[in-house]
Amino acid sequence: MNRTDITPILDGTHEAYGNGVAWTMNLLIILSAIAIAMETEPSLPAAMHLWLKRFEILLLGIFTLEYLLRLFAADRPLRYALSFWGLVDLLTILPAIAFLTPEWQAVRVLRLIRLVRLLKLFRSSRALDRLAIAFQDVRGELMVFGVTSGLVLYVAAVGIYLFEHEAQPAAFSSIPMSLWWAVASFTTVGYGDLIPITAGGRVFTTFVLFIGLGIIAVPAAIVTTALLEAETNIGKKKKKKSKKPKKTEATDSKTAQSTKGD
Amino acid sequence: MNRTDITPILDGTHEAYGNGVAWTMNLLIILSAIAIAMETEPSLPAAMHLWLKRFEILLLGIFTLEYLLRLFAADRPLRYALSFWGLVDLLTILPAIAFLTPEWQAVRVLRLIRLVRLLKLFRSSRALDRLAIAFQDVRGELMVFGVTSGLVLYVAAVGIYLFEHEAQPAAFSSIPMSLWWAVASFTTVGYGDLIPITAGGRVFTTFVLFIGLGIIAVPAAIVTTALLEAETNIGKKKKKKSKKPKKTEATDSKTAQSTKGD
Amino acid sequence: MNRTDITPILDGTHEAYGNGVAWTMNLLIILSAIAIAMETEPSLPAAMHLWLKRFEILLLGIFTLEYLLRLFAADRPLRYALSFWGLVDLLTILPAIAFLTPEWQAVRVLRLIRLVRLLKLFRSSRALDRLAIAFQDVRGELMVFGVTSGLVLYVAAVGIYLFEHEAQPAAFSSIPMSLWWAVASFTTVGYGDLIPITAGGRVFTTFVLFIGLGIIAVPAAIVTTALLEAETNIGKKKKKKSKKPKKTEATDSKTAQSTKGD
Amino acid sequence: MNRTDITPILDGTHEAYGNGVAWTMNLLIILSAIAIAMETEPSLPAAMHLWLKRFEILLLGIFTLEYLLRLFAADRPLRYALSFWGLVDLLTILPAIAFLTPEWQAVRVLRLIRLVRLLKLFRSSRALDRLAIAFQDVRGELMVFGVTSGLVLYVAAVGIYLFEHEAQPAAFSSIPMSLWWAVASFTTVGYGDLIPITAGGRVFTTFVLFIGLGIIAVPAAIVTTALLEAETNIGKKKKKKSKKPKKTEATDSKTAQSTKGD
Repeated sequence: MNRTDITPILDGTHEAYGNGVAWTMNLLIILSAIAIAMETEPSLPAAMHLWLKRFEILLLGIFTLEYLLRLFAADRPLRYALSFWGLVDLLTILPAIAFLTPEWQAVRVLRLIRLVRLLKLFRSSRALDRLAIAFQDVRGELMVFGVTSGLVLYVAAVGIYLFEHEAQPAAFSSIPMSLWWAVASFTTVGYGDLIPITAGGRVFTTFVLFIGLGIIAVPAAIVTTALLEAETNIGKKKKKKSKKPKKTEATDSKTAQSTKGD
Repeated sequence: MNRTDITPILDGTHEAYGNGVAWTMNLLIILSAIAIAMETEPSLPAAMHLWLKRFEILLLGIFTLEYLLRLFAADRPLRYALSFWGLVDLLTILPAIAFLTPEWQAVRVLRLIRLVRLLKLFRSSRALDRLAIAFQDVRGELMVFGVTSGLVLYVAAVGIYLFEHEAQPAAFSSIPMSLWWAVASFTTVGYGDLIPITAGGRVFTTFVLFIGLGIIAVPAAIVTTALLEAETNIGKKKKKKSKKPKKTEATDSKTAQSTKGD
Repeated sequence: MNRTDITPILDGTHEAYGNGVAWTMNLLIILSAIAIAMETEPSLPAAMHLWLKRFEILLLGIFTLEYLLRLFAADRPLRYALSFWGLVDLLTILPAIAFLTPEWQAVRVLRLIRLVRLLKLFRSSRALDRLAIAFQDVRGELMVFGVTSGLVLYVAAVGIYLFEHEAQPAAFSSIPMSLWWAVASFTTVGYGDLIPITAGGRVFTTFVLFIGLGIIAVPAAIVTTALLEAETNIGKKKKKKSKKPKKTEATDSKTAQSTKGD
Repeated sequence: MNRTDITPILDGTHEAYGNGVAWTMNLLIILSAIAIAMETEPSLPAAMHLWLKRFEILLLGIFTLEYLLRLFAADRPLRYALSFWGLVDLLTILPAIAFLTPEWQAVRVLRLIRLVRLLKLFRSSRALDRLAIAFQDVRGELMVFGVTSGLVLYVAAVGIYLFEHEAQPAAFSSIPMSLWWAVASFTTVGYGDLIPITAGGRVFTTFVLFIGLGIIAVPAAIVTTALLEAETNIGKKKKKKSKKPKKTEATDSKTAQSTKGD
């Protein structure tokens, strides 16, 4: 194993060791995210906090080693250090060092900056690229229906404000507040903190919900569909490669819009 | 630039300036909607209110200028003034003038009439036409399933009223009140203001929900599907124009029912 | 107009008057349902109650007239009187008569029996037949996934009972009570009357929800799909009749299973 | 009827008696599950408890008989006794015996172990196999989108924690607690125990919900689709067997990805 092997191994593209190293690193990143989440739990026993700190030191060592190895293996170390992934690698370590300094430990945001580690998950996998491609394909549609959904929410908020403001001046205090009601209602989450109580407000809610739910569902449906397709296209290229060489092009253009049939 | 260019520029159809003007006007309308929403916020500092008022005066100037320009550019000014868009343009300005008169500022509804501006968003874009076409295509289906959904809601409301009225006479006080429960439950919003507590009411809810959710979901599915199709058809016409000239008709008729595959 | 015309007119199948009479009767039935719902509203002013009573008497007259006309027009009056629709027509009138008797007015259930009128909506339209056909087509699938969904709900209920019973003995008091939680959670209604509070219960809920929602969604998806298809098939037969005579059969068999492609 | 017929009869594969016996056994298992659920109800009258106990003794007798018959009919009894289904059959009886011993009756978990009986439902039907096949087909996709969904939930939890922790230190006390909010919100259950109250938290929730709901919906959509397909493929093989012998292969490959069209 020589110097030129280091980057492929760490990137997970090396033939012999790549896969194993990539999985190990991704697992460490996910464990790190779980550990950072657990640290914020106030009811955690002190002993557990100690173990979490030890785990953090271990991670710090591993990620520092990775950073140094990448610097050492890079043809132009400075260029790597200033590249996007180089900065991500650095940000992965720096806040951790700060975290170990007692007087900085209280700064909550600082501790959470370590979560920049999650970005590293996207280097070895190509999931982020797929996601980006899927979104790019439907960018135009998403914008049109995003704006339409925004309008539906706005109109619903203004309407409920007119109906409920007088009856519940504290709850439906303003249009932005009513927008929060519209968000909770049209996503069907329905937290229950803002509920129409006037007859008019309830009738309005009924109509606006039944008409609006179909419209608001469109952007989510576009995203879901685009992601399902992106995955299918990749899966098909793997499985069916050159099965029906002649028809492939036509088939692909058909697949391009899944729920939209062809 | 001469007089005949004014209308195309304002409509966003002018070759050179149309796009820019249309985007600017749409942006102003959306900012205006946000400003109107913020005005209702009671916790807003006085300084912010002053800025919102200044922004409103600026908008008033721009929309008045637009109205006058359109009047000036129209071949028959009176006809424009009495047309739908002419009245919308007028209503965009009038309430704002009233809003600046101190004694009328308190009339909440008057201030919100300015939101008629949102309609102007639909002049330059053709989104409203698409929406109208999409709804027209499925009008018949929507009515059939709309009535069916209404019946399901009504039957669920009567049922829960029979089960819960005695146990919770204040909550499930009448069938219209129980209908409000049915709306919140079948849209899966579930505000939590009305909750069955009797064993019978809960068993009834379980059955009626599991059977009814599939039926109630149909109208929303029809709307979502119709909108996705409308967008796809337009997208296809742009992208694939005359790719498969012979099959186009057959393909279109197939596309007519999106989620129904091919 | 002679005696043999009466039944077709009332059924809405008569060429000249059928449509108008059918629409009028259906409208009356829906208005009657709305009136019956409003009667239960305790806050309704006395004057309104009087008008509702008058409307009820009017309906009583119309439905009695319909019943008598049908009896008179039937070839074998007794057979009609004992048929399903004959009994429905009778039940439409009888409780109303009881309703007008002062001492019976308090019997709530009696008053609601008048809602049997809603059944009459299904005589002139063929909506019920379509619904029945749609359900028949997917009966087998529905049963398999209905049982599977029931199992998922049951397992979720037992699990949450084990996790939460000790922490909240009043809320999660038994497995049937926990089933109510499972119903509210898996339909995503989320009333908020039963909420897991233990760490174990929450982790369990997270896993069981993410795995189970996809399974529980299947029966509703089957119903929605079947109804969309039933409508499409009818719509196609009306619109495209003999457009592509040769391909029709193949196309139909393909369309038969919408989300299931072909 | 001789010894070799016993196993097929109990498994439900016997030509003459199989179906009836299988249905009876499945019914008994479901009734047993309902009985076990009812036992936990504290408000149940004592007489009902007695009847449930008697029913349990009856079941115990039937399942013991089944176990003994299977042991007797097996070619190699020990092998059956140590096989998966042999152990399931044993576990079906043992806890019931314990349940009848007065001093063990209080052990709740012990009583619920009897629910292992539900597993027996999967022996005669092939539902479990279908489920397993459906999941196997989409295992890869599920993992990719499961991890993506997990990331979305985690990022949403960290974000809401930063926005709401200071305003509601008791509710959004830690990141794991915020994750519980994210689970309830992104499944759209919305229990309403944790609700953002700061303006920042609400704006963040709005954006993260509208972007995230489309992504989180993907795993559930994959499961629903896979199950619908699995059922359709089986249904088609039964109904359309050799209808279009030549096209079958092409058709099947098309069906392989339902919502993904072809």
